Order: sequence, then structure tokens, then C-alpha cells
Amino acid sequence: MEPHNTEEKIWLLSRRYGLSPLHRILLGHDGSMTALLELIVCHEVALTTIRQSVVPCPEEAAELLDVDAGEATNERDILIVRKNDRRPLIYARSYTPLSRLKPEFKTDLMRADIPIGRIMQKYRIEARREILDVGYLEQDRQLETLLGCTAPFLWRVYNIITEGKALITVKEFFPRAIVTYT
Amino acid sequence: MEPHNTEEKIWLLSRRYGLSPLHRILLGHDGSMTALLELIVCHEVALTTIRQSVVPCPEEAAELLDVDAGEATNERDILIVRKNDRRPLIYARSYTPLSRLKPEFKTDLMRADIPIGRIMQKYRIEARREILDVGYLEQDRQLETLLGCTAPFLWRVYNIITEGKALITVKEFFPRAIVTYT
Repeated sequence: MEPHNTEEKIWLLSRRYGLSPLHRILLGHDGSMTALLELIVCHEVALTTIRQSVVPCPEEAAELLDVDAGEATNERDILIVRKNDRRPLIYARSYTPLSRLKPEFKTDLMRADIPIGRIMQKYRIEARREILDVGYLEQDRQLETLLGCTAPFLWRVYNIITEGKALITVKEFFPRAIVTYT
Repeated sequence: MEPHNTEEKIWLLSRRYGLSPLHRILLGHDGSMTALLELIVCHEVALTTIRQSVVPCPEEAAELLDVDAGEATNERDILIVRKNDRRPLIYARSYTPLSRLKPEFKTDLMRADIPIGRIMQKYRIEARREILDVGYLEQDRQLETLLGCTAPFLWRVYNIITEGKALITVKEFFPRAIVTYT
């Protein structure tokens, strides 16, 4: 799906579900998610790693990353939480092919608990984010548990591209109610 | 001013003036401004060039760009307007040292009426944006005329950095009332 089509899909979802500008920004912006969340909640946020391991790249992620399925990738499941009260803001699962990681970046990523946006800022990495797909989820019991709130949820998939290749592909979920956390 | 300090300055302005999350995002996000505005107003936006010329770089811009004052730079004054009703959303003045422009990018930039974010997307340019300063403007008659609305205004200064150097420095002004344009 081309970026331009993603924007139109956001406008469509917006009309269908009566989304607010903040929802549309969370779905479609192409900046750092960590920075955006801090601006929204007006407070520092922190990353909590749920699970992290090196796995053979699943087919779907391999296609998005343009690598061979089965290639060694770092799979990371995280929550970004508000730092003061640990309220979960988003849940994300990401895949990074180990072959595309520079050593210093790799150390920070594997050490966990550092958001990608922060690592990129630290190493002054130049990149672009390509929003690939977005959607609306009426029900999901597992997300309700993880994010400590009731459905519905919104989600998006995007790639962070450096030196012409996808460094990481991310799928993020956040509660529709996030706009009340400000 | 370091990026981290800019975020704290935004939180400070937010408390002092009772800003909304949308104001804070407009001040502090590090993605494309064009894309962000389209997500906010849920409509396409267009660029209107007020003035464009090659000038000797003024001292203040030279310092931000880390070039010699007087070096040939493209100075561009623009409005970004909502496409359907031409309502002005932001006013921006930018400086780009000609020495840092790749030929194809230069053509698009000089041809005017194409937002930077779009040009960067077109050429898949990898970059990072560094927010340098932000502020609140109680009064400004000229901006009231340009933006077709009454004060106050918010402003920010940022650099777009590619290949380790600032490609462009931008100062943007938008009406506080922009949050009602959604």
C-alpha cells in the first residue's frame, strides 16, 4: 500500500468511526512515536519490554522488510507507558533483521528498554518512515489486558528506512481512549 | 538549544498558556509538517509561495545552518493553505544554502509551490529534523494579515538535516486557533 493511499484510508476511517485529529495523527504521522506520545501526554514516557528474542523472520515481516523469510531477526514486544503512573499508551511488535544493524545500535536495541526513536536520536540516524497500513479493531481481549483498557483500538504498520533499506518494521496498537489521557 | 530542552520549553508554554495536545504536537513533532497538517484538517493542503529569491545568508540563519553569513541561500516565504477553501494554516520562512542542494531537489524547490516534505518524499530522502526553539506570540499585525486570523500565534524553528548537514532551516508560525480548523 502506497503512503498516499494510507492517508486516504485514514480519512475514511476517520469519517466511519468519528475519529479525532489526535487519532489521525497517531495513525499517520511520520515522526518519532516516543516524541509524539510525550507531546500528547505532556510527560515523559518509558519503554517496557514484554519479550525480546532473535527469531527466524516470519513471512509477513520478511515481505515488509524485503528480506528472506527465516533470516535472523530481533523480535521485540514492548509497551510505551507514561513514566509517572506507568499507564500503558501503546503496544508494539517489531522485527529488525540482524544483518542490517550497526554494532552500536544493536547493543542499545538488544539491551532493551530504549525506544527506537531515542536510539536514532542518540546516533543522529537519518531515516524516513513509511506508513504501510492502518486499521481499527473493535475487539481484542489480549490488547485489553496488555493496555489495561477496553476496546476499540487503532493500529498501524510502518517501516523505518535507513540507507535505502528497512531497518525495522513495526506494528503498533493504541486505545481509542488515548485521546483522554492528555 | 538542545532538543530535550525544547520539549521542556513546550511543556512550560503548555502550562503557562493552557495549550492543547495539538498545539504541543505542532510545536514539537519531528515529522513532515505537510503530512501533519493534512492529518489535522482531514483534507489536502497546498503551498502558496509569497516570495522566493536567492539572497546572501543572513547572520541568524547562517548560524543555525553552520554556513558563512553571506553565502548564497534560497529564501522562501510560504503559506500552507487548506486546498478546498484556501484557508491559511501556517506561514513559514526558510533558508537553504544552494551549495547543499542536489540538482533535482533544487529544481523542485525553486519551481516553488511544492512543500519540502513532499519533495523529500518524492526523492525518498532520509533525514532527521531537529527542533531548535519554540515560542508564543501575543501580538503580530503582519501575521494576522498573512494568516487571516487574530493573534496569538505559536512558532518554532527547526533544521532538516541530511548527510550530517542542515539542508534547510525553517521558522514556522501558526495561529493558536488552528485547533478549531479540524
